[in-house]
Amino acid sequence: MTVNSRPAILGQNQYGKAENRVVRITRDGATHHIKDLAVSVSLSGDMAEVHYSGSNANVLPTDTTKNTVFAFAKEHGIESAEQFGIHLARHFVTSQEPIRRARIRIEEYAWERIAAPGADGSGHSFVRKGQETRLAQITYDGSSWEVVSGLKDLTVMNSTDSEFRGYVKDKYTTLPETRDRILATSVCGRWRFNWTGDEQHMPSWEQSYEQVRTHMLRAFAETYSLSLQQTLYQMGARVIENRAEIDEVRLSLPNKHHFLVDLEPFGLKNDNEVYLAADRPYGLIEATVLRDGCEPRIPVDLTNL
Amino acid sequence: MTVNSRPAILGQNQYGKAENRVVRITRDGATHHIKDLAVSVSLSGDMAEVHYSGSNANVLPTDTTKNTVFAFAKEHGIESAEQFGIHLARHFVTSQEPIRRARIRIEEYAWERIAAPGADGSGHSFVRKGQETRLAQITYDGSSWEVVSGLKDLTVMNSTDSEFRGYVKDKYTTLPETRDRILATSVCGRWRFNWTGDEQHMPSWEQSYEQVRTHMLRAFAETYSLSLQQTLYQMGARVIENRAEIDEVRLSLPNKHHFLVDLEPFGLKNDNEVYLAADRPYGLIEATVLRDGCEPRIPVDLTNL
Amino acid sequence: MTVNSRPAILGQNQYGKAENRVVRITRDGATHHIKDLAVSVSLSGDMAEVHYSGSNANVLPTDTTKNTVFAFAKEHGIESAEQFGIHLARHFVTSQEPIRRARIRIEEYAWERIAAPGADGSGHSFVRKGQETRLAQITYDGSSWEVVSGLKDLTVMNSTDSEFRGYVKDKYTTLPETRDRILATSVCGRWRFNWTGDEQHMPSWEQSYEQVRTHMLRAFAETYSLSLQQTLYQMGARVIENRAEIDEVRLSLPNKHHFLVDLEPFGLKNDNEVYLAADRPYGLIEATVLRDGCEPRIPVDLTNL
Amino acid sequence: MTVNSRPAILGQNQYGKAENRVVRITRDGATHHIKDLAVSVSLSGDMAEVHYSGSNANVLPTDTTKNTVFAFAKEHGIESAEQFGIHLARHFVTSQEPIRRARIRIEEYAWERIAAPGADGSGHSFVRKGQETRLAQITYDGSSWEVVSGLKDLTVMNSTDSEFRGYVKDKYTTLPETRDRILATSVCGRWRFNWTGDEQHMPSWEQSYEQVRTHMLRAFAETYSLSLQQTLYQMGARVIENRAEIDEVRLSLPNKHHFLVDLEPFGLKNDNEVYLAADRPYGLIEATVLRDGCEPRIPVDLTNL
Repeated sequence: MTVNSRPAILGQNQYGKAENRVVRITRDGATHHIKDLAVSVSLSGDMAEVHYSGSNANVLPTDTTKNTVFAFAKEHGIESAEQFGIHLARHFVTSQEPIRRARIRIEEYAWERIAAPGADGSGHSFVRKGQETRLAQITYDGSSWEVVSGLKDLTVMNSTDSEFRGYVKDKYTTLPETRDRILATSVCGRWRFNWTGDEQHMPSWEQSYEQVRTHMLRAFAETYSLSLQQTLYQMGARVIENRAEIDEVRLSLPNKHHFLVDLEPFGLKNDNEVYLAADRPYGLIEATVLRDGCEPRIPVDLTNL
Repeated sequence: MTVNSRPAILGQNQYGKAENRVVRITRDGATHHIKDLAVSVSLSGDMAEVHYSGSNANVLPTDTTKNTVFAFAKEHGIESAEQFGIHLARHFVTSQEPIRRARIRIEEYAWERIAAPGADGSGHSFVRKGQETRLAQITYDGSSWEVVSGLKDLTVMNSTDSEFRGYVKDKYTTLPETRDRILATSVCGRWRFNWTGDEQHMPSWEQSYEQVRTHMLRAFAETYSLSLQQTLYQMGARVIENRAEIDEVRLSLPNKHHFLVDLEPFGLKNDNEVYLAADRPYGLIEATVLRDGCEPRIPVDLTNL
Repeated sequence: MTVNSRPAILGQNQYGKAENRVVRITRDGATHHIKDLAVSVSLSGDMAEVHYSGSNANVLPTDTTKNTVFAFAKEHGIESAEQFGIHLARHFVTSQEPIRRARIRIEEYAWERIAAPGADGSGHSFVRKGQETRLAQITYDGSSWEVVSGLKDLTVMNSTDSEFRGYVKDKYTTLPETRDRILATSVCGRWRFNWTGDEQHMPSWEQSYEQVRTHMLRAFAETYSLSLQQTLYQMGARVIENRAEIDEVRLSLPNKHHFLVDLEPFGLKNDNEVYLAADRPYGLIEATVLRDGCEPRIPVDLTNL
Repeated sequence: MTVNSRPAILGQNQYGKAENRVVRITRDGATHHIKDLAVSVSLSGDMAEVHYSGSNANVLPTDTTKNTVFAFAKEHGIESAEQFGIHLARHFVTSQEPIRRARIRIEEYAWERIAAPGADGSGHSFVRKGQETRLAQITYDGSSWEVVSGLKDLTVMNSTDSEFRGYVKDKYTTLPETRDRILATSVCGRWRFNWTGDEQHMPSWEQSYEQVRTHMLRAFAETYSLSLQQTLYQMGARVIENRAEIDEVRLSLPNKHHFLVDLEPFGLKNDNEVYLAADRPYGLIEATVLRDGCEPRIPVDLTNL
């Protein structure tokens, strides 16, 4: 049977082991360091036959990709999520002829030390920070790299300095305008580095992440907001303007509505003091901010991993 | 300030109200019918200014898009998720000049009647089916339509007739080959209709969904599987071959591993009887199956909504 | 150091391995049967020393309790969740002197066959039902048994025949009375059997579960409801009245509010047709229904497992 | 119909509105303060009739209890979760004759300021801490109080100084002993105050919470652990010994297993460096630690709210 005779043709495909939860301990004398990751591997290449006939002759088992993640944590250590993903992606593409592209996605969970003054154990006791989850995606096709870092679940709020006025009114519009509201969102962001080749100087991944996070938080805090779109743009633009290693930022910002509760039926005046935090529905504002002259590559819809 | 002078340029953007939970009751005498949806609206168009300066002059509030969902449930009813999305998308694009594209995403939760023989209440009492969640995405740009339907969380299992052998072994491979394993997955699928214009005959959305679901389940059940990729292809191909209204299927199939438990330390033989169902990590097999000659349009990474 | 000198004394304690996901396949020729459980073991007894000094001399490792679950799935099969729990609880209490009480909690996930007419594979292909999760808790102290079965996440709705009127009004009351509303809830229930000793005739666990579930669904459907409390009582009472093996029912019923949407601003009349399904806050109605003369033993607050 | 003639009798019951998400902003000039709570109300009392006949004559609607939460946030402010719950519980019991007992459960989400040096917005911009969720439960029956505070989802890890040896071995035991393992858990705790009457000096709720949390973290960090039970006892005892206002601590500690990965097949030695973080199954260690002479009152099974 030849491919041409099939009515149903195989298109893009990828496979691998998802969410390998690897924890790497590094010892600096009595002081320990933790890297805590969930690593997902996706491989593509010459894989038509396994789909059409079930032949696994080109298939490196997903179990092997899992083993490789844990072995590489020992062999290479985990300097940063991005660097670890680069080691893995390079390995799969260069060691297996049928594999033409590897994409590594990583979630990173941050830990901080438990402050225990005078305790012997202070060097190896940790509490999970629990704030945002850091993200990294590393893609390699044998010649060029794409690194997209990001974060999710970073929840922020401005309790004033946010308006919403001057919008379109149609027959279904009932929303009153406001000059003072709570603006809250859970930041989900991705940013793409312009590092694409081994011959280029590699960014400092850890420092870059901390700086991007700080710029976004400050832009959120410092923007007097006329709309969440404006705040979003400021957050993205601040990164582009301050971090030369980044060409593109994609942000997905749910508008976590805080409704001012009507207390008049109870003879009370609510002077922007008491709010109901609503779950659903929520506004959802999404946009890409690009360095002038660059092409967008981050998908419009951000996925969870 | 002109756009050209900015280092940071606005790229693709969209906004709207997400997860509007609308329940529509229709009465046929004493017999009631339910449609239970979560509807998410995303609008795009001439929206640069709200991002750059915060001017909302072109912005229909997300609250208005919410109101429209509920008003349309009354005005148009909900014949099917797809038909309802078509009404909404057409409305936003045709009624608001700055809006050039509307995308409506819908989750549908199925209910079945409570069997209560002889009870007066039998016509209006329901229990949620709770199996898969049905999905629909309707996109309209003022001239052509794209309808992608789908489902998620349909968990299936074959307790035999699955092998995994003949794969590549490298230095990190430890997995033994097997001629009899459990094959289980939670089907996440999307399929794109070739209906794109109002002048074309519109598919029967409800019937099409039931048929696609049945074809995928049967393909899963009837395929003697040498790899999950083979099963995936068969599921997609069965749809393409049997449903002329569909040109593209994208499937994302986590391999829900069931590990045969080693009972030998306890003097017991495990003859493919006792399995440990594992959570993470899991294999993840993803592919597109296309009608020959068609272009793929469904994104590689399926999002949750 | 003696116990008496401690300011801090050990109270009730229990330990074990939670959420052992065991899948048991039984073959009846080419026809396979599935039991799919999450089994949690909690053991209590002479365990003061492990808490005070860290001595594990009385501690059967939680890893061993896990192994026992899988070994027993082979040795005893899984006739029902309750019967399986009885085997396990008896084993731990009778085989380990320091263990005085064993409590086994089980979640069961139901599967149904994929209907694939004429297919060879029809006997071993399944789709997960996905409706409620069945629950069982078996406790044994070496002399008497307590079996509490239950379910969670069974979502039901009456689209009419529900009122809410005649309630107390205080200064914080703004809710209007209604003679026609949607009544929807997600049933979380537990019921206790009066089987307590090996010398008694053991109930038919599988049949009992199906019957209890049916009685509760019918009571929900058939009750013209003046309040969710009334419906709750009817659901519990129907079980007590019809199932002699059960002495106590505890129900926790969230009132899944469906708010009638005000469409008047859009010139539309909403004749109980269009509802907004809200997430939070929700009413929560909880009560025990007891066979007259029996003592309550199910805790007031139902836990998730 | 009299109650005596019923085969099915009403037992313990409670009702109210759950998960009212109230956010209270307090202004100190340009500096704002946030309290962010989910408040659940449960009322009990003379409620037989609403269950038996559906009469709501004694029922204060759950909607009214919701309104009261928001009104009280204005009227009384939210000094602490405990103090806010005391206001609410007292109100329901003293203002409604049929209500004999009120229980208020509260989840609190902590926020910290966004550090934005020199920014005007620094006083009203926040990022959610995202670590543990603080809990409070206040119960009042018209004469005496019970306050139980707590936390959940505080994830901690010791990367060494944990052994597990000297345990019971039976025929199902395969676990090897270890002198060096990772000990990690997600702390779920409750602690009961001995403040029970208005005539007593009320504890400083905010300070008490911070101190309890610190004592538990330090006990976790400083205990060389021979078993998780020992660590649990130390965490509870440290609170009892240092906080005179607390008589009882209940802890539920899942043993978040980190398995040392066998890298020998790849020619690598894993010197306690690379671990697989497992999800399920997990050990679950639960115990009460009591002040000597006090009675336990916290239920054995901790519920989620």
